[in-house]
Amino acid sequence: MDRESFRKYGHSFVDWVADYLGDVEKYPVSSRVKPGEIKNLIPLGAPQNGEPMDRIFQDFKDIVLPGITHWQHPGWFAYFPATTSPPSILAEILTAGIGAQCMVWLTSPAAAELEEAVMDWLRQMLGLPEGMAGVIQDTASTATLVALLTARERMTDFRSNQSGLRERLMVYVSEEAHSSVEKGAKIAGYGRENIRCIVTDQDFAMIPSALEEAILEDKEQDLRPACVVATVGTTSSTAIDPLSDIGRICRKHDLWLHVDAAYAGSAALLPEKKWILEGVQYVDSFVFNPHKWMLTNFDCTAYFVKDSGALIRTFEIHPEYLKTEVDSEVKNFRDWGIQLGRRFRALKLWFVIRYYGVEGVRKVLREHIRLAQMFREWVEEHEKFELMAPVPLSLVCFRLNDGRDDEGLNLLNKTFLERLNASGKILLTHTLLKGKYVLRMSIGSRTTQERHVREAWELMVAISKELLA
Amino acid sequence: MDRESFRKYGHSFVDWVADYLGDVEKYPVSSRVKPGEIKNLIPLGAPQNGEPMDRIFQDFKDIVLPGITHWQHPGWFAYFPATTSPPSILAEILTAGIGAQCMVWLTSPAAAELEEAVMDWLRQMLGLPEGMAGVIQDTASTATLVALLTARERMTDFRSNQSGLRERLMVYVSEEAHSSVEKGAKIAGYGRENIRCIVTDQDFAMIPSALEEAILEDKEQDLRPACVVATVGTTSSTAIDPLSDIGRICRKHDLWLHVDAAYAGSAALLPEKKWILEGVQYVDSFVFNPHKWMLTNFDCTAYFVKDSGALIRTFEIHPEYLKTEVDSEVKNFRDWGIQLGRRFRALKLWFVIRYYGVEGVRKVLREHIRLAQMFREWVEEHEKFELMAPVPLSLVCFRLNDGRDDEGLNLLNKTFLERLNASGKILLTHTLLKGKYVLRMSIGSRTTQERHVREAWELMVAISKELLA
Repeated sequence: MDRESFRKYGHSFVDWVADYLGDVEKYPVSSRVKPGEIKNLIPLGAPQNGEPMDRIFQDFKDIVLPGITHWQHPGWFAYFPATTSPPSILAEILTAGIGAQCMVWLTSPAAAELEEAVMDWLRQMLGLPEGMAGVIQDTASTATLVALLTARERMTDFRSNQSGLRERLMVYVSEEAHSSVEKGAKIAGYGRENIRCIVTDQDFAMIPSALEEAILEDKEQDLRPACVVATVGTTSSTAIDPLSDIGRICRKHDLWLHVDAAYAGSAALLPEKKWILEGVQYVDSFVFNPHKWMLTNFDCTAYFVKDSGALIRTFEIHPEYLKTEVDSEVKNFRDWGIQLGRRFRALKLWFVIRYYGVEGVRKVLREHIRLAQMFREWVEEHEKFELMAPVPLSLVCFRLNDGRDDEGLNLLNKTFLERLNASGKILLTHTLLKGKYVLRMSIGSRTTQERHVREAWELMVAISKELLA
Repeated sequence: MDRESFRKYGHSFVDWVADYLGDVEKYPVSSRVKPGEIKNLIPLGAPQNGEPMDRIFQDFKDIVLPGITHWQHPGWFAYFPATTSPPSILAEILTAGIGAQCMVWLTSPAAAELEEAVMDWLRQMLGLPEGMAGVIQDTASTATLVALLTARERMTDFRSNQSGLRERLMVYVSEEAHSSVEKGAKIAGYGRENIRCIVTDQDFAMIPSALEEAILEDKEQDLRPACVVATVGTTSSTAIDPLSDIGRICRKHDLWLHVDAAYAGSAALLPEKKWILEGVQYVDSFVFNPHKWMLTNFDCTAYFVKDSGALIRTFEIHPEYLKTEVDSEVKNFRDWGIQLGRRFRALKLWFVIRYYGVEGVRKVLREHIRLAQMFREWVEEHEKFELMAPVPLSLVCFRLNDGRDDEGLNLLNKTFLERLNASGKILLTHTLLKGKYVLRMSIGSRTTQERHVREAWELMVAISKELLA
């Protein structure tokens, strides 16, 4: 494809994205296709000869688009958001165009140094302790795995890397922790049986005294406590584990403290929400996702670590073919995580933070929180709706409750969710809180405005009337 | 940023990329900056208020660009290539614009089903056995780790996931295998001491009889052989481990056979190079990188596995908040690897394969191989140059040799490489082959034409004359 053809198609693709983002509301938020429907439209084998770009683009619109669930839709209230923004998308165009692979400093010094600089901006913005070093990972799952591995090596004095893991090490999480901790503990060789799930209080936050009891019990049995993963903003209900108390326990017993703030971390940008990170001085590693609630394209996970030496010692490799003259003077981020190859992800973060400024990002977050609190009030005021968890940020957990028993309510709310989502106007997901089926209204899409939340509420009230009639 | 501003900047970013790719030759291939130079140009903290996009774009050109090492440069002969192409970049624009997070089928059915379909295209294109299932991973490092973990679970009957790894399991690789195997073996808890590095023949390929001896020795000592990682196209010299012989040994001793064909896998698209995968019927898992030598933007790693059930059983998690109604009918790729979140990476692969067609991709590969063979002949014919390894594909390992001892030659060639790279016209990297310092001429950039290889050779001859004068 020559320069002018690329220019022509590039312009028309940008035009398409501009209109898509402007009109995304017009699509049903979740794809309407059935399993297998898309696959059946794709030939069973690759074409021998090239096809014109016009036809490929047309197939993108005809075949792919109906199978897309629109994460940037204003009616996106599912899971947590994965927010993009125009400056982030623009940066992705440059990243793709340059096509640099940023495994070591030398293979693009700007990528390494911009990453270091912008991650320190983020550290300051969140109020993380000076001296914590940052690196971009792809996902919070990976970052939590990285933390579990570093904790494993620290606890075994790097013997596991050398001779293989042969000790029984314990991990502690709240019963509300994300599944990535279980997955990471399996991958790192801890085993899921060696994860202690600590009970939570009525707000779904870890009870520190229960944590300490579990640690003491395990020590008595000659098990080796290695790592605590505290959650700031659980997936089910954005519960906030109390870092100060947990941190003191970790320090006392010499455990690695990792904090999973995948979604909620962004809120620490707000002075009025800084309390969610109270006790952060005890933290050994910390992860949050700018790709969730900070306007930056997936994937972009921010991982901070106090002892970067332990991190590097866990992951470093030094084959001859990767050695460069400057290795002793620079940061080679290949040694800060699992992958060798790395995209130039700092660019979009730099674009987003500069384009919005700290105040601009705060404004977006505050509006989401305001909308969620408004929605929470509606839920609390309505006699057939029940608020199911505190709403510290922008996620509201609720259910219909007409007084029937919990089993009946679970079924009712499952049907309620299906009916809501079938509308195509909104998409919510569910969770279980202490065995109760709960709907999650997660407000964080860049395109969501007050009217979208109002319309969602009106739809909920209307459908609830039908269901309870 | 409103729709029209995004359109305007999008067009100008596309124009910049079009001109960048057209003129990339005019840049010095490797960045000329010194450590710290870029970082010093970036403010120490984030801006409080937003900045205009024009200024950010200007800073990209003034600050970032001089710190970029240009992987798409025609003089890129370093490492292996990371080829992009116009259709791949165009697809990345759409992927970034849609911003879908494709962790499960429901969160974008088109992403899941296109991935399944296009990976099967690739399977057929490479001639991998029917029934092998494909999934896109981010890097070959991750894919090899995934293989090592699946092998670990299979060998311990999934006890490691459950109760933690507590057995000594052995991994076998050639002494020329990539560092990602060591890294993966450490992460998965095998430990680096439990990797047996099998000696290679004069062509740097694994000696199967030495592999079997090592396995038998370990069994006699009650160690548990778990996994062999064979390399098709080693990083140092693209040596090809003999899969048939290795495969028979793995079958006999019931070991998982993983094949790392990160770079060379693409060559199996060529009928005349199909021999590199002879014995592939024995393979349990296979990885190659379309982002290396198949015109697709990083990151895009193709991972194939025979027993996808074992893979899923190794990685599956089932928290309530991720359950969907269709889980039993569809592929949820979150359970096929380490990360939960996933970019829509199948799109660019679909664009690339359709735009070029199988024949179009073959043409690109054949030209690179032709250029490498031409270069190899020049090396062989020149009395001061020495060919250091066979050239089955498009990597030529060579050195200057004027008859001095090996230590002297190592120093000479180190200087030679530095002088070549200082030109800014080409970038090569080095390796050690049986202790000898060797330059790697890796030909695979989409923009590299015959004249660039000729100019590189002329530069080499000129500098060698100066050095040997």
